[in-house]
Amino acid sequence: MARIDGRAFDEMRRVKITRSFTKHAQGSVLIEMGETKVICTATIEDKVPPFLKNTGKGWITAEYSMLPSSTQTRKIRESSRGKVEGRTQEIQRLIGRALRSVVDLDAIGERTIWIDCDVIQADGGTRTASITGAFVALVDAFNVLLVNQQIAKLPIKSFVSAISVGVIEGQPMLDLCYEEDSTAKVDMNIIMTDQEEFVELQGTGEEAPFNSKDLMELIRLGTLGTSMLIEEQRKALGELAALVGGE
Amino acid sequence: MARIDGRAFDEMRRVKITRSFTKHAQGSVLIEMGETKVICTATIEDKVPPFLKNTGKGWITAEYSMLPSSTQTRKIRESSRGKVEGRTQEIQRLIGRALRSVVDLDAIGERTIWIDCDVIQADGGTRTASITGAFVALVDAFNVLLVNQQIAKLPIKSFVSAISVGVIEGQPMLDLCYEEDSTAKVDMNIIMTDQEEFVELQGTGEEAPFNSKDLMELIRLGTLGTSMLIEEQRKALGELAALVGGE
Amino acid sequence: MARIDGRAFDEMRRVKITRSFTKHAQGSVLIEMGETKVICTATIEDKVPPFLKNTGKGWITAEYSMLPSSTQTRKIRESSRGKVEGRTQEIQRLIGRALRSVVDLDAIGERTIWIDCDVIQADGGTRTASITGAFVALVDAFNVLLVNQQIAKLPIKSFVSAISVGVIEGQPMLDLCYEEDSTAKVDMNIIMTDQEEFVELQGTGEEAPFNSKDLMELIRLGTLGTSMLIEEQRKALGELAALVGGE
Amino acid sequence: MARIDGRAFDEMRRVKITRSFTKHAQGSVLIEMGETKVICTATIEDKVPPFLKNTGKGWITAEYSMLPSSTQTRKIRESSRGKVEGRTQEIQRLIGRALRSVVDLDAIGERTIWIDCDVIQADGGTRTASITGAFVALVDAFNVLLVNQQIAKLPIKSFVSAISVGVIEGQPMLDLCYEEDSTAKVDMNIIMTDQEEFVELQGTGEEAPFNSKDLMELIRLGTLGTSMLIEEQRKALGELAALVGGE
Amino acid sequence: MARIDGRAFDEMRRVKITRSFTKHAQGSVLIEMGETKVICTATIEDKVPPFLKNTGKGWITAEYSMLPSSTQTRKIRESSRGKVEGRTQEIQRLIGRALRSVVDLDAIGERTIWIDCDVIQADGGTRTASITGAFVALVDAFNVLLVNQQIAKLPIKSFVSAISVGVIEGQPMLDLCYEEDSTAKVDMNIIMTDQEEFVELQGTGEEAPFNSKDLMELIRLGTLGTSMLIEEQRKALGELAALVGGE
Amino acid sequence: MARIDGRAFDEMRRVKITRSFTKHAQGSVLIEMGETKVICTATIEDKVPPFLKNTGKGWITAEYSMLPSSTQTRKIRESSRGKVEGRTQEIQRLIGRALRSVVDLDAIGERTIWIDCDVIQADGGTRTASITGAFVALVDAFNVLLVNQQIAKLPIKSFVSAISVGVIEGQPMLDLCYEEDSTAKVDMNIIMTDQEEFVELQGTGEEAPFNSKDLMELIRLGTLGTSMLIEEQRKALGELAALVGGE
Repeated sequence: MARIDGRAFDEMRRVKITRSFTKHAQGSVLIEMGETKVICTATIEDKVPPFLKNTGKGWITAEYSMLPSSTQTRKIRESSRGKVEGRTQEIQRLIGRALRSVVDLDAIGERTIWIDCDVIQADGGTRTASITGAFVALVDAFNVLLVNQQIAKLPIKSFVSAISVGVIEGQPMLDLCYEEDSTAKVDMNIIMTDQEEFVELQGTGEEAPFNSKDLMELIRLGTLGTSMLIEEQRKALGELAALVGGE
Repeated sequence: MARIDGRAFDEMRRVKITRSFTKHAQGSVLIEMGETKVICTATIEDKVPPFLKNTGKGWITAEYSMLPSSTQTRKIRESSRGKVEGRTQEIQRLIGRALRSVVDLDAIGERTIWIDCDVIQADGGTRTASITGAFVALVDAFNVLLVNQQIAKLPIKSFVSAISVGVIEGQPMLDLCYEEDSTAKVDMNIIMTDQEEFVELQGTGEEAPFNSKDLMELIRLGTLGTSMLIEEQRKALGELAALVGGE
Repeated sequence: MARIDGRAFDEMRRVKITRSFTKHAQGSVLIEMGETKVICTATIEDKVPPFLKNTGKGWITAEYSMLPSSTQTRKIRESSRGKVEGRTQEIQRLIGRALRSVVDLDAIGERTIWIDCDVIQADGGTRTASITGAFVALVDAFNVLLVNQQIAKLPIKSFVSAISVGVIEGQPMLDLCYEEDSTAKVDMNIIMTDQEEFVELQGTGEEAPFNSKDLMELIRLGTLGTSMLIEEQRKALGELAALVGGE
Repeated sequence: MARIDGRAFDEMRRVKITRSFTKHAQGSVLIEMGETKVICTATIEDKVPPFLKNTGKGWITAEYSMLPSSTQTRKIRESSRGKVEGRTQEIQRLIGRALRSVVDLDAIGERTIWIDCDVIQADGGTRTASITGAFVALVDAFNVLLVNQQIAKLPIKSFVSAISVGVIEGQPMLDLCYEEDSTAKVDMNIIMTDQEEFVELQGTGEEAPFNSKDLMELIRLGTLGTSMLIEEQRKALGELAALVGGE
Repeated sequence: MARIDGRAFDEMRRVKITRSFTKHAQGSVLIEMGETKVICTATIEDKVPPFLKNTGKGWITAEYSMLPSSTQTRKIRESSRGKVEGRTQEIQRLIGRALRSVVDLDAIGERTIWIDCDVIQADGGTRTASITGAFVALVDAFNVLLVNQQIAKLPIKSFVSAISVGVIEGQPMLDLCYEEDSTAKVDMNIIMTDQEEFVELQGTGEEAPFNSKDLMELIRLGTLGTSMLIEEQRKALGELAALVGGE
Repeated sequence: MARIDGRAFDEMRRVKITRSFTKHAQGSVLIEMGETKVICTATIEDKVPPFLKNTGKGWITAEYSMLPSSTQTRKIRESSRGKVEGRTQEIQRLIGRALRSVVDLDAIGERTIWIDCDVIQADGGTRTASITGAFVALVDAFNVLLVNQQIAKLPIKSFVSAISVGVIEGQPMLDLCYEEDSTAKVDMNIIMTDQEEFVELQGTGEEAPFNSKDLMELIRLGTLGTSMLIEEQRKALGELAALVGGE
C-alpha cells in the first residue's frame, strides 16, 4: 500500500512557516503543511479575564475558525449560525492548553495573549498546524514585550509543536492529509515539547478500537513528527529561537 | 503520601449501578462512583438525523448536563446562559463516540438512541462515570427492541467502560475524586473495551508535560480500572450480560 | 366514574419527602407525589440582584427544569434549543413568588437563595410538587444560616404548599396525575399557607369555562390538599418545623 | 380612603374601542382603558402549526409587546435583548387561551389567526385590555371569512372580556391603574364569558396572602367589570354583535 | 404614464405631524405620509454609552421596528426570531446618523436620547418618514431640558428631513408609495438640512444602473421634497421652530 | 495639504489582484489595495433560496468578515458574540446587490453563488475592495460552469467595481486609507459599471453635511477610480475579460 501523495509512512508533508504575514498583530504567521494553510496571530491585550484580576498572572486564550471557502464543500460561517460548534470549541481549548503549558504565566504580567488561528485552506491537520504555527507567533509577540522592556526575558519554557497520526488499513502513518484522515479508523493528535514530553495525547478509535502495539507505533511517529516540526520552528525563528527556555 | 480518602493508588471508589431508576426511558441507570452520581438514560426514537436518512443505519447521540446544585458552588444553568459550554460539548461528543464504537449501527435500523447523562452530584470523574453508566442503559434499551422482536440480536460488539487516572505530586493514581482532580498536573481519561483495546485516550499535561514512563503507568492503571468497571457492568446486567458481543 | 388509579376524588397520591438528598446545596430535598419525583434544592449566595444592592434586603429566585428523560416522550433539552420555554418561565416565576410570600426578605441580609427544582420523573403536578418540596429545602438552607449564627431566627412567616385540582367529566378532583391532567377541562393550581390563606390561585378553563359552583368545590379540595401537604412538611422537618412562623 | 383618580371602588375607567384602526390586518382595534392604549389586530393565515396539520382544525395564537416608549421609564426592546421575557410569554399564553376558549376551532378550517397586541401607552391593565380588544378584532377577522363565504357562520361561542381587580390597603377595587397596581398587595385578573362563567382566574398575593372573604369580593368586582366590558364590545361591534354565539 | 394614486411626479403625499401623541416620552410624534404611519418618540436617559463616559458629550441612538400588523402580509416579530434583521439595523443606523448630524452633542451633557420609530402602518417610505418625524420629537425632548434649565439653548444646528425618490419606467418620481417602491428600478433616499446640504444620499440601482442625468433629476426632486417637509416640521413645531439653529 | 502617504488627491493606492489564491472555491482572489488585503471567493451551490425555488432563476449572496487580527485593535469574532453586527450586515447586503446588478440571474439556472469576502488586513476601503475583488472571483466561478458546458455564455452584463472617496479638511480625495477615513467629515462609496453608470452611491456627512459642489467632485473622483479599477480587473482576467458583456 502506498500513500495517496506518494509519501513514506513516516514522512511529513512540506512545511513552510512565514513570519510577519500581516501587520497589525504583534505576532503573525502563515503556516503551510502541504495544502493546509493557517494564519496564526498573537495579539497582546493589557488586561486579564475576571478570575485572574489582581493576581499578577497573565493568560493565553485561543480562537480557531475556518474560512467558509477553506473546505472542499463551503462551510457555513459560525457567525451566521449564531453559535460556535462543538468541534471548534474543542480545538480552541486544545490550542489554548497547549500554549499555556510551555509559558510561565506568572512572568507575563496581567496581560492576555489572544491567539487567532484562521484556516484559509484546509487539507487535514488544521488543529495541529495551528498549534505549531501559533507557537511561533507567540514568540514574536513576547519578543515585542521584551524589546519594549516590558518583560525581562522570554517567558517560554520550551518549544511545543503538534502533529496528527493515524492508522489506515492497519498501517500507522504520520501527518495525515484530508483524504487519509477521512478513511483512518484510528486518529491521534500528539503535542510534544522539545524535551520529548507529552503536553497532550488524544487518540480516538471510533470506527475500531486500537491495541497497545498500534498505540506504541503512533507515539513513535508522533515523537518523530513533532521533533521535526520543532526544527522548522527553530529555523523560522532564527536568532529568537535561542531565547526559548533560556535562563 | 496517602490519598485524601485513604484509598491505595490503584484502588477505585465504591461503584453502584442501579437499573430502572426512572420509568419513562427504555434504559435508565443511576451510577454512583463514590460521591459522584449520574442518571444515565437511553431513549429510542424512530428516526435518524438527516445525514442518515434512507441509509438503513441508526445513530447514537449523547447529551450531558450537570444540575445546578450538583457542584460545590452552584453552577449556572446552561439554558439560562442560552448556550452550551465548550466543556459540555466536548463531553457529549466523547460519550457519543465511545458508545457508537461498540455498537453495530447497521443492525439497529433507522433509529436514534438518545443518551442523557444528568449529573445530580459531582465529585470528579463525571464524564467517565457517564460512559460506564450509559453503556448499561443502552443495553437495556436495545433489550426492549429485542424483546419486541424489532431487532434479531443485541447489536453490541463489546463492553465499554471509562475511568480517569492522573498524576498527583509525581504519583500516578486511579479514579480521581474532585479534590484530587483539581490538584493533578496530568489528567487522563481512558475508555476501553472488554478486549482491552482503546476506544479513546485523552491525556493532558497542561500544568506540566509528562514523559513516557508516566504514560505507561497511567495506561496500566486505566486498563485495570476499566476492566473492574466492566465486571460491575456485567454484575448489574445479570443475564443480559451474556447477550453482549454474542453471535 | 372511578379514578384511573382507584383513588377517591378527594384523595391525594402517596407523598414522600426525603431531606439531604444530595450533599452540596444547603437544602436538598427529593419530593415524590405518586410517580412524580422532583429534586428541590436551596443554595445560598452572598449577593443580591442589582435592584436590591445596598438595601439590606435579600431575594429568593427559582429555576425549574425537566430532565429530558423525565417525560413519556423525551423532552428536548432547553440548553440545546438555546432558550427557555414560556411554560418553564411561568413555573419559575410561580415558584419564586410562592416562596417569597412566606419569607421575611428584610431579615435574611443581602443574600440570594437559589431554588432549583429539577424533575427527574414526571406524572402530573410537577410545579406544585416543586413548591411543596422547595419549601422544605428552604427551611434547611435557612437553618444553616441560623446554626452559623448568621441570622437570629428562621425568617419564615408560615408554611406554604401547593396542589393541583381539576374537573374531569364534570367531577372536581384532587391531585391530578398526568393522565387525568391531560383530559381535565378545568385545571387549577392552589397555593396556600398554614393559615388557610391564598398565596396564589390559577384556574384555567381553556377547554370549557367553569361556573361559581365548580370554583367553590375546587377551592375546597385545594384547601384540603395543601393542608395535608403541610402536615407532610411538618413531619419531614421534625424539630425544625417548630421554628417556622416563630417569634 | 379615595382612589387616586377619584373613582368609586367598583368604578371602571373610561373605555373606548375603535375598530379599523389600521388597514392591513383583517381586524384592527385600538382599545383605550383610561390612559392604557393597545392596538389589537387579528390576521388570518392559511396554514396551521405542525401539530394540527391535516386535522381540519384551526388555531389562534397571540403575541404581546410594549413599545419602548409606552412605559414611564423606557423599556428595552425585546428584539434588542434577543429574547422574549417571561412576563411577555405569560401574557401571550394567557391571551391565546382566553380567545381559544370561546372559539370553535373545528369550524375555522386549517387557518391560524394571529392576534397581535401592541401596547402604545401603558397605565395598568394592559393584558386584560389586550384580551378585551383582541376579541373585537377577532370578530372582525372572522367576519371577513364570513363575507367571503369561506365559513358558514361566525365560529364564536360567546363574548369574552377581562379585567384586573386588587386589594389596596385592605380595600378591594376594580380596574387598577398603574399607580394602584404597584401598591396592591393582592392582584387578580379575571376573564369571563357573557354567561358569567370563568375562562381564567389568576390571583396573586405575593406581598400578603388573602383570605376567602377577599377572594369573594374580588370575584364580585371582576364579574361586574367583565360584564360592563362585554356591553362595550357589543356597542363597538354594532350589528356584528348579534352573530356571536349564534346558531 | 400616471401615478397609481393620481399624483404628479413631483408631488408628495399628504403629510400630517401630531405632537404629544403618547404621554411618557419627552417627545412623541405620530407622522403620517399618506397611508404610512409611524410613532416617533424621543426619551432622555441620564447616561451615555461606555465610549463616551467622562467626556461630557452626549449621544443619540435610534431603534426602528414595524408592528407585525403594519405590513400587507403579517411580518414576523423580531423578538420572536431572536435577532434583528439586517434591514432593520441599516435603518436604525441611518436614523441615528441623520439626527446626530444636526445636533451639537457637546452641548447636551452626558445624556443619551433614545429615538424609537415604530411603524404602525406601512405604505412605503417608512425610514424617511421616521427621520422626519423623529426630528420633531427630538426638538420636543430637548425643549423639556431647556424648560427645566438643564441646558441653556436648543442644541440643534439645523432642521433635517428625509424623502425617498425613485425611477419607475424611466420616470423619476418623488415620495414613492409601497406599490411604486416595489416596481422602481432605481431607489434613492435623500436626507437634507434646511441649508439644502446633504446629510446622506443613498441610491441603489440593483435592478438597473442609472446614469448622471437620472441622478441629477432625483437630487432635484429630493431637494424639493425635503424642503417641503421642513416646512411641515416648522408648522408642527410652532414657536419652537424659531429655536432651531439659534444662537 | 499633502496626503499622509504622499499621494495626489486623485491618486489611487497600488492595486494587486491575485487569482486562484486558494484551491477549493471555483473563484478565489486576493485583492490588495495598498495595505488592505481581502480574500474574495465565489462558490457555486446547486440550489437556491426558498423564494426562488422552481423559478429557473439563480441567486448571488455575499458574506463579509474581518479576521480578528486584521484591524489595529483586535476585533472580537462575531461567532463569539453570537451575532452579526449591523455594519457587517450592511456591507454584505451592499456586496450582494452590487454583483447581482451586473449578472443575468435568469441565465445561471437554479444555482446560488456564495461570495465570501474575508479581510485579512484592513487599512480602509475594505467593502469597496471586496466588491472589486469579488467581481473577478465571480467571473472565474462562472467560467467553470462555462467550461463544463453548464451554461452557454458568461452571464455577466458588465464589469462592476467600487471605490471610496471623501472630504478631508475641505478637500475631496480618492481612495481613502484608514487614517484618512477616520478623519473624513464626508465619506462616500461609489459603485459603477464599465458604462460609467451608477450601481450604488452612498454618501454620508454625519460629521458635517456636504453641498452640491462637493458631491459633484466626489462623483468625478469616484468615476475616475472605478474606471481605473475596471482596467485592473481586465488585466487580471486576461482572456476572460473579453467574455464579460458578450453576446
